[in-house]
Amino acid sequence: MKILVIHGPNLNLLGKREPEIYGKTTLREINSSLKKEAQGLAIVVEFFQSNNEGEIVTKIQEAMGKFDGIIINPGAYTHTSVAIRDALAATGVPTVEVHISNVFKREEFRHKSFISGVAIGVISGFAADSYLLGFRGLVSHLKKNS
Amino acid sequence: MKILVIHGPNLNLLGKREPEIYGKTTLREINSSLKKEAQGLAIVVEFFQSNNEGEIVTKIQEAMGKFDGIIINPGAYTHTSVAIRDALAATGVPTVEVHISNVFKREEFRHKSFISGVAIGVISGFAADSYLLGFRGLVSHLKKNS
Amino acid sequence: MKILVIHGPNLNLLGKREPEIYGKTTLREINSSLKKEAQGLAIVVEFFQSNNEGEIVTKIQEAMGKFDGIIINPGAYTHTSVAIRDALAATGVPTVEVHISNVFKREEFRHKSFISGVAIGVISGFAADSYLLGFRGLVSHLKKNS
Amino acid sequence: MKILVIHGPNLNLLGKREPEIYGKTTLREINSSLKKEAQGLAIVVEFFQSNNEGEIVTKIQEAMGKFDGIIINPGAYTHTSVAIRDALAATGVPTVEVHISNVFKREEFRHKSFISGVAIGVISGFAADSYLLGFRGLVSHLKKNS
Amino acid sequence: MKILVIHGPNLNLLGKREPEIYGKTTLREINSSLKKEAQGLAIVVEFFQSNNEGEIVTKIQEAMGKFDGIIINPGAYTHTSVAIRDALAATGVPTVEVHISNVFKREEFRHKSFISGVAIGVISGFAADSYLLGFRGLVSHLKKNS
Amino acid sequence: MKILVIHGPNLNLLGKREPEIYGKTTLREINSSLKKEAQGLAIVVEFFQSNNEGEIVTKIQEAMGKFDGIIINPGAYTHTSVAIRDALAATGVPTVEVHISNVFKREEFRHKSFISGVAIGVISGFAADSYLLGFRGLVSHLKKNS
Amino acid sequence: MKILVIHGPNLNLLGKREPEIYGKTTLREINSSLKKEAQGLAIVVEFFQSNNEGEIVTKIQEAMGKFDGIIINPGAYTHTSVAIRDALAATGVPTVEVHISNVFKREEFRHKSFISGVAIGVISGFAADSYLLGFRGLVSHLKKNS
Amino acid sequence: MKILVIHGPNLNLLGKREPEIYGKTTLREINSSLKKEAQGLAIVVEFFQSNNEGEIVTKIQEAMGKFDGIIINPGAYTHTSVAIRDALAATGVPTVEVHISNVFKREEFRHKSFISGVAIGVISGFAADSYLLGFRGLVSHLKKNS
Amino acid sequence: MKILVIHGPNLNLLGKREPEIYGKTTLREINSSLKKEAQGLAIVVEFFQSNNEGEIVTKIQEAMGKFDGIIINPGAYTHTSVAIRDALAATGVPTVEVHISNVFKREEFRHKSFISGVAIGVISGFAADSYLLGFRGLVSHLKKNS
Amino acid sequence: MKILVIHGPNLNLLGKREPEIYGKTTLREINSSLKKEAQGLAIVVEFFQSNNEGEIVTKIQEAMGKFDGIIINPGAYTHTSVAIRDALAATGVPTVEVHISNVFKREEFRHKSFISGVAIGVISGFAADSYLLGFRGLVSHLKKNS
Amino acid sequence: MKILVIHGPNLNLLGKREPEIYGKTTLREINSSLKKEAQGLAIVVEFFQSNNEGEIVTKIQEAMGKFDGIIINPGAYTHTSVAIRDALAATGVPTVEVHISNVFKREEFRHKSFISGVAIGVISGFAADSYLLGFRGLVSHLKKNS
Amino acid sequence: MKILVIHGPNLNLLGKREPEIYGKTTLREINSSLKKEAQGLAIVVEFFQSNNEGEIVTKIQEAMGKFDGIIINPGAYTHTSVAIRDALAATGVPTVEVHISNVFKREEFRHKSFISGVAIGVISGFAADSYLLGFRGLVSHLKKNS
Repeated sequence: MKILVIHGPNLNLLGKREPEIYGKTTLREINSSLKKEAQGLAIVVEFFQSNNEGEIVTKIQEAMGKFDGIIINPGAYTHTSVAIRDALAATGVPTVEVHISNVFKREEFRHKSFISGVAIGVISGFAADSYLLGFRGLVSHLKKNS
Repeated sequence: MKILVIHGPNLNLLGKREPEIYGKTTLREINSSLKKEAQGLAIVVEFFQSNNEGEIVTKIQEAMGKFDGIIINPGAYTHTSVAIRDALAATGVPTVEVHISNVFKREEFRHKSFISGVAIGVISGFAADSYLLGFRGLVSHLKKNS
Repeated sequence: MKILVIHGPNLNLLGKREPEIYGKTTLREINSSLKKEAQGLAIVVEFFQSNNEGEIVTKIQEAMGKFDGIIINPGAYTHTSVAIRDALAATGVPTVEVHISNVFKREEFRHKSFISGVAIGVISGFAADSYLLGFRGLVSHLKKNS
Repeated sequence: MKILVIHGPNLNLLGKREPEIYGKTTLREINSSLKKEAQGLAIVVEFFQSNNEGEIVTKIQEAMGKFDGIIINPGAYTHTSVAIRDALAATGVPTVEVHISNVFKREEFRHKSFISGVAIGVISGFAADSYLLGFRGLVSHLKKNS
Repeated sequence: MKILVIHGPNLNLLGKREPEIYGKTTLREINSSLKKEAQGLAIVVEFFQSNNEGEIVTKIQEAMGKFDGIIINPGAYTHTSVAIRDALAATGVPTVEVHISNVFKREEFRHKSFISGVAIGVISGFAADSYLLGFRGLVSHLKKNS
Repeated sequence: MKILVIHGPNLNLLGKREPEIYGKTTLREINSSLKKEAQGLAIVVEFFQSNNEGEIVTKIQEAMGKFDGIIINPGAYTHTSVAIRDALAATGVPTVEVHISNVFKREEFRHKSFISGVAIGVISGFAADSYLLGFRGLVSHLKKNS
Repeated sequence: MKILVIHGPNLNLLGKREPEIYGKTTLREINSSLKKEAQGLAIVVEFFQSNNEGEIVTKIQEAMGKFDGIIINPGAYTHTSVAIRDALAATGVPTVEVHISNVFKREEFRHKSFISGVAIGVISGFAADSYLLGFRGLVSHLKKNS
Repeated sequence: MKILVIHGPNLNLLGKREPEIYGKTTLREINSSLKKEAQGLAIVVEFFQSNNEGEIVTKIQEAMGKFDGIIINPGAYTHTSVAIRDALAATGVPTVEVHISNVFKREEFRHKSFISGVAIGVISGFAADSYLLGFRGLVSHLKKNS
Repeated sequence: MKILVIHGPNLNLLGKREPEIYGKTTLREINSSLKKEAQGLAIVVEFFQSNNEGEIVTKIQEAMGKFDGIIINPGAYTHTSVAIRDALAATGVPTVEVHISNVFKREEFRHKSFISGVAIGVISGFAADSYLLGFRGLVSHLKKNS
Repeated sequence: MKILVIHGPNLNLLGKREPEIYGKTTLREINSSLKKEAQGLAIVVEFFQSNNEGEIVTKIQEAMGKFDGIIINPGAYTHTSVAIRDALAATGVPTVEVHISNVFKREEFRHKSFISGVAIGVISGFAADSYLLGFRGLVSHLKKNS
Repeated sequence: MKILVIHGPNLNLLGKREPEIYGKTTLREINSSLKKEAQGLAIVVEFFQSNNEGEIVTKIQEAMGKFDGIIINPGAYTHTSVAIRDALAATGVPTVEVHISNVFKREEFRHKSFISGVAIGVISGFAADSYLLGFRGLVSHLKKNS
Repeated sequence: MKILVIHGPNLNLLGKREPEIYGKTTLREINSSLKKEAQGLAIVVEFFQSNNEGEIVTKIQEAMGKFDGIIINPGAYTHTSVAIRDALAATGVPTVEVHISNVFKREEFRHKSFISGVAIGVISGFAADSYLLGFRGLVSHLKKNS
């Protein structure tokens, strides 16, 4: 089983950036803990970060046939990108949407997601743990449907 | 550590009801698997189901001082109950909101939650697993903040 | 054939309450005339009134397997209760929604119904006769589909 | 007692048209069953179908003084015609609005009716029976108020 | 100079219809007083009443080249007819919009006019006098611009 | 018979100001032509212009008992002043609202009037003639109702 | 003279709950000070608290004929309960709506009240004093109208 | 193969009317060029123009079984007619919607079409060529699906 | 202790104006009863009425350092004046907003207040008593916070 | 004559992706058929596909002076990109907007286009033929305007 | 060159009022620094402050022919005054709009300006420097266009 | 002191593009005049232009620790980019938003900015001078806060 983890714009700043919102864990640490979790289950994970909407679209397209599932934190593109939504719908790779902060406690424009409508499920607000929970939810889903 | 699990209206029908939306797992089975998970971690869980908004409000109030955290699937009251929101805010017990179906894929009126704004985090769409993921997220949160 | 008639909040005041809107017929009189109509057709009817949203939800759940159809006047809950809507959808018992007054002639907030979307049909504005018409419509529907 | 039955645009196609929405009964059959019902009660019924908003307005005006009540299925004009509304309000002939399908289960723009605000009552969703129920509701209303 | 006066739907009922809103003057009387006013100024007036949107559109088209100005009381079509608006814009005949009642004192949906945006001016609320005032305003406008 | 003519903010600039919108007639010329018209009918007219909302409110209050009618061009206050509306409603002096330009052809925010709801009628778009037409409409109204 | 004081959901937590919003006075203390005030005026007061919408509806119904006036703090049901509104309108007992916090300074959804439209008056923001002011306002109103 | 071309209200004025918006080609010229195009492909075309919503509805109904496809320029009815929409849906004849001007560059209310949701496709803005392109698109569609 | 009472536009007409809305008590009588109440408590009150938004703003500014509290009935400016809101916020003098009629029972545009968000509390609907209740509420608030 | 064809995000997946929406023709096949059509008319066509908003903007800028017209299928950027709109407006190269599916039959958010307002015309819903029709419409437009 | 500087309502409180929003610089200090800047460029500046909408309108009218440019901080009238907008449009004196605080970071209702649409440009958020920057921008604009 | 100047999409066309909106000054000339201004103050400026949202996000991230302030003209991304907003908020580098044209005089969708809420201030409408004014405002702000 192979899983692709996509981090959207500004997530490369995690841990250094606005820690009162996003916590102190860095992206590297998140990736490490996901890798450890995956190794225990003999699952391969690959990581990708980009600030660029088009690169994320292309990456999702390339995942088709190569990955069994996607975990995506679309960051700011959650609220503005129809292109990422379309890429996910087109490739049909099962996807989980995760957010570090609870977006429903923040500005009104962060409450709307273009991604949720094409995702299996959504996890929001558990800090770095959102990724781990999303990983478990995705693996469990894939096992049931394989 | 003690955790209260609250199931809102119509969730007593789980497994028998609209399985194409809510799956085939019954409420009893969800509670069992949560209990098993909790026992392994020496955590006490208690379960409560009601179709009645006022009873849920009262139960949340009674949780103050007796429970360390709440997992709530507010069902249909997610979208209409200011009273449950106020009860959660008033008691201040850390709470995780879970949904069996991905509410963002359903009718427009199910996209708005009065509960999310006072919850730690939200988990939506992982079928019966939403509870398990919520449980892990809540326990992890409580450990970090104790 | 067995039919359950549910009267929502404040309908116990019928006849005493704002007669310029709701007329002078009491709930007891409505139930009597429905009973008479039913006896002529060898149909069993049962009546239930509650001011409590949760109790109505529970009653609808209990109707599953016991009743062939439901006539409901959801009163004020028509406009606010997602929980009753979900209960009707979950149990799948064929349901007719009735209103004594013509809700479309009244305040804006009474024009929206959460119930209509899960009912066979809606009857509004015929005073106490709304129940009789709803009864005939439901029986006719059940006969065609049995 | 004389009653006018008005069928709005496209209702001449009934029975041939989208049977999954409108059923298989033709307009002729609906008119026949109404006629039979009326004859038993010594009531005169007259029928009128038009695809043309202005002709319907004119017909309603002509009903003044000639008919005791109107049953109207305004079809698509339900949602767009202030002129028909004004005609009904102007003539003051007691009117019942009927719909074959449950309009509240269909597209958003079909949920708003310009007619309901000037009708005695509304019946929606009972297939061809909507007319029969409307007929009975109207006759009962007229008898009480004469 | 030739002027066409168009009366929209239901205006044939003037004087008989809802006199508390529209007054007791009949359409015939309005036309008479307009004719008298016109004769004194050696102006030809022609009158047209229809309940039919399409017929009004056709009449406006035919006015092109034959009339110097139009006075229109679009009745209920004021609020719904893009077709009449387009016809007026297309023919380019200078037009005055008149209303017998003050539409801004009535229901919300009567405050919006599709016609005002293509008219010289609007006169609303002076009972039968609205026509006379509109006539004078139109003649004065035509004289200044000829 | 005594009539008060109120000119709102910026109308003192008439004739010098944006002639493509408001024409070339000055306020003095409008007042002269109204005076001439009034003298022929043995009616007294008085004129008042102010850029100040409060002064207009006070003037309207003082008109009570002293004037039989008011012609008001509220200028920009048409769209923002509840105070002028309340003053007109409180004093109850019959009032006609006039506008030099056709406000319905201009910016969206000029389509809403707080004044129309308490006026006899509204005249908009006939350049300086709007005042004359308003004068005639008001006089005719006062004669009928005296 | 007899007055019923109704406290809505979560008000049993007063004093313990979010004191920065609701202050430190408990419900018992509020009731005591109201009782003292009432005894000086030889007025009987009775108190009722419930978290349950249906129970409040029932209580209001029972007040009919037994109480001269109602003071209600509907708490969260202020913004969602059509049923309580209907009960107040149905029983017709003069009612004053009070709020401890100034609801207009809080979340947008608290600015809308279903209750204000059927109340004599509204008092909001004077902490525990809101009840005392409401009591005086109600008594004064009842004396003037008896 | 037989194709019906329907021109909506005011299109009989084409060429004479607002040429800066609609160009100088007349309806006769459009019909001629369509006829020529059709003859080359041995396709029969028939033309119909009406300013009357009801007549267009009736024409669409009559097309059922007689025509293989419809090209419609609904003119102003694009934005207001549910009746034409229903007629097209009911008859099921494959339909292409065309507009001479680019409606998306014009007033806001012209951006919404009731027709597009039941058409194969939409062509807007190519002047008289919109019809030719629509014709080719329709023929190509019919050939693929026959 | 010194308190300033501000009466907004048109309140000088109180008692003479629309008594079915505002009652028969005059402004002078309101001021007298407030003075009597104040003298018993050794509090100084000063009164100010203006129809002019700018003068009210200036008066509020001058209150800074001279008055301990303000009672304001902003009349029509309640719904349109950001300037009065800003003046109150800037000076920081504790303020109570009062209304004679229950504004929530009147036109939609009277439901929104720019003032409530910067006031201690709001009292609406107790006729002339609204001022007395506001006075007591303000004094009680000032004593607690001094 | 030289024409640039721009394919937006995810269109590289055409033919493999959601064939029930987008059909089975691949992008390569579309380009081939356009090339064939162009060669017959001695027109040069060039193709460009990108998932990246910024690259599309840059490509449009480079087209200035090098191409006579643009055919663009902006894909998901249709609904979100002001930058592409600005680039088209800035360069002023005549542009046709095409869509493979009929966007008006899909989700609400796909009904709004930032591009249509700066395009000559729009073609939507003719599968791969949308490109061919757009090509013909563009060439015809360029010939008339050269 | 002569420039008029207009300060709107409450700006006379600058420096004393809510310093966390508006800073500590007084209006006198702002005027001094503008004067100094102007003297170095041999430009005459005049200052005007009023809390009164009507007085500001009158001042703007008087500026016509006497001043080459206006700098206006309309304060709270920014969001409500159509009259000031009309005065600026009517007189045609080039105008720059300045704000001390960044209005876009504050309440929603401060984001809309009636003035921006008739100004050369807008400067917001640079504390007292907003005036200096506005002054430089205006002078530079006037020099280029003289 | 070091300042980064970011030019968003299409700004590389400045001077060549739509001069009636954006003027004739090129980007090179703007950069030159900023450089000259900076050199006089011994400030280092660096310039960056990109049509690509992701590249701008990355550039802003890289500015952290290297630059003391940012001047950004986000062009079309002003209205659509949450990602640029998040990057500015995350890095915390003081930022001024500038626009060449007065965006408030243009299309409605250009009135909303995602950037203003995280900027010190906004300058709009002074042509190329907007940059110079923004530069001075930023330098002045940085000096006061260092």
